[in-house]
Amino acid sequence: MLNKTIRSLAVLATAGFLVLSAGTCRAEDPLPAWNDGPAKQAVIDLVTAVTTEGGPDFVAPEDRVATFDQDGTSWVEHPAYPQALFAIDRIAAMAPQHPEWKDQEPFKSVLAGDRTAIAQFDEKDWLQIIAVTHSAMDVAEFDRLVQDWLPRSMNPVLKRGPVTSLTYVPILEVMKYLRANGFRTYLVTGGGQEFVRNFAKDTYGIPPSQVVGSSIVTTYKIEDGKPVLYREPKVFFVDDGPGKAVGINLFIGQRPQIAFGNSDGDREMLEWTTAGDGKRLGLLVFHDDAVREFAYGPANGLPDTHVGAFSQSLMDEAKARGWQVISMKKDWKTILAPAP
Amino acid sequence: MLNKTIRSLAVLATAGFLVLSAGTCRAEDPLPAWNDGPAKQAVIDLVTAVTTEGGPDFVAPEDRVATFDQDGTSWVEHPAYPQALFAIDRIAAMAPQHPEWKDQEPFKSVLAGDRTAIAQFDEKDWLQIIAVTHSAMDVAEFDRLVQDWLPRSMNPVLKRGPVTSLTYVPILEVMKYLRANGFRTYLVTGGGQEFVRNFAKDTYGIPPSQVVGSSIVTTYKIEDGKPVLYREPKVFFVDDGPGKAVGINLFIGQRPQIAFGNSDGDREMLEWTTAGDGKRLGLLVFHDDAVREFAYGPANGLPDTHVGAFSQSLMDEAKARGWQVISMKKDWKTILAPAP
Repeated sequence: MLNKTIRSLAVLATAGFLVLSAGTCRAEDPLPAWNDGPAKQAVIDLVTAVTTEGGPDFVAPEDRVATFDQDGTSWVEHPAYPQALFAIDRIAAMAPQHPEWKDQEPFKSVLAGDRTAIAQFDEKDWLQIIAVTHSAMDVAEFDRLVQDWLPRSMNPVLKRGPVTSLTYVPILEVMKYLRANGFRTYLVTGGGQEFVRNFAKDTYGIPPSQVVGSSIVTTYKIEDGKPVLYREPKVFFVDDGPGKAVGINLFIGQRPQIAFGNSDGDREMLEWTTAGDGKRLGLLVFHDDAVREFAYGPANGLPDTHVGAFSQSLMDEAKARGWQVISMKKDWKTILAPAP
Repeated sequence: MLNKTIRSLAVLATAGFLVLSAGTCRAEDPLPAWNDGPAKQAVIDLVTAVTTEGGPDFVAPEDRVATFDQDGTSWVEHPAYPQALFAIDRIAAMAPQHPEWKDQEPFKSVLAGDRTAIAQFDEKDWLQIIAVTHSAMDVAEFDRLVQDWLPRSMNPVLKRGPVTSLTYVPILEVMKYLRANGFRTYLVTGGGQEFVRNFAKDTYGIPPSQVVGSSIVTTYKIEDGKPVLYREPKVFFVDDGPGKAVGINLFIGQRPQIAFGNSDGDREMLEWTTAGDGKRLGLLVFHDDAVREFAYGPANGLPDTHVGAFSQSLMDEAKARGWQVISMKKDWKTILAPAP
């Protein structure tokens, strides 16, 4: 009886001891997909400073905010933004009901699969495409279309899909590392907020309320006695460039301590982030690895592909402001997870 | 030695046992400021259903969302919305720099303290007042003005201040009860999002990112080398009426299981909430206690004061849809906390 009691107590005590050990043991490398270097070190230093109680840069857990651009920062954006691929697929699916599109730009080029023409589309062309593919339906119907498309989505150059599997392993590691240290992680994307919310939880561990993105106007209606939110062909908010600083203030209401981007559209997010009091950090992913992914600039003389452009002036500003430029080639041991 | 070991183990085991007991002991009344009745019971039933694992209405903790209107639902809105009091105080403070206001409506009536005229102001009047008092400054300056005003704010009829102390104890209890059961609690207010974020954490335990409200356009600018978000005299989003359903989808991206309102401006929030799948609950606070607070309708023949109107058609819809109407007189044991 006594032996049994001792054994039971010992089991309980050992369980308690193990819990304590797990909490206090020396942490393993939280970022194994990163090579050692200034970018990785800067992330670890920021987290250490923000989480050191009593230190000059300590931030209470509820005030720890990290923001990540999506296209080109968290997942592959070449040769085209995945949301553009979705829109193009929708045009093809809707074409039988729209015989007039065969002779009408920009639909004609989309239906002909003319990649050169598509690459030249201007904002007006894309707005027309977004209007017919993303609006004139309620939000539930739009979500169904996205959910239906995602599993059969495909990157046409890498010949890999779904697009949600083409995320950057080092960025997923940083998101987890930050969350383990009390940060709320947000996507702050020029992409559609409603589009991205359909997979952000499964793909990044980011819930719908932590996806800040571009949006169109929605209108409340009662249809057959049930309320619906109807998507109108009208832009409501563009979460890109200066809109990212506006969006952070509007949706989060707190300034991030750390922000990740990769293009000129992230310039103001990093300016806004790093202009805050205390320790802050801005980082830019630079696509300089043509072998393992893509190489584009036009900074540092890399090709200007017009998708996710990283200009020389952004590179200069990064240096002037002490932002970390992440070389995909040198800083990332792994870029993509193996194909599923 | 053996005895000491047993004693140590016993202490650890007892500690473990106490932790377990605390988790499983019978809960005390979570809503002591509520009288027993259908409204209180409906709240408890909703929480029980949503949190019962394996039950038909179980909702994962990360998907539990509760929304609360502010004016008239969470704090006193009579005789005027607290934010209108702020705007009126700002007009008085700015008047020396605007001698022309003495002869110019709506400023003339505000400066004369003409409550009858102020009560008749239409939307255009209020937009003019909001434009001069809430814009043409950066967000940091606006926050400073609100923080400066709050401690000296005062309800002119109750002769009590600050306005942040005039919250409803039963609603604060529900917010805590819901959070203790894994819900995220949101304010969804027609009031200014940036205004309310200045005190929502201290007043309600609600962080900035969980305040959904009306907003004006902000513009990103660089001033003296530092980025600022400049408040423009232009409405961006009106989070009232149908805008509350739109705002919930836009800012939260998930449908609440439970929503609290008190006026016609909350109708669509409750429709949207209760039209969701599974168990949902809408509740409306009805101000029928002229002795302890205020009595207004015009539903049930109470006076129509035009601030926080609860129409007969809303009362009829509440009955038809099974929403709970909370009688402040009968359902609430306590309304306000004693004056500080």
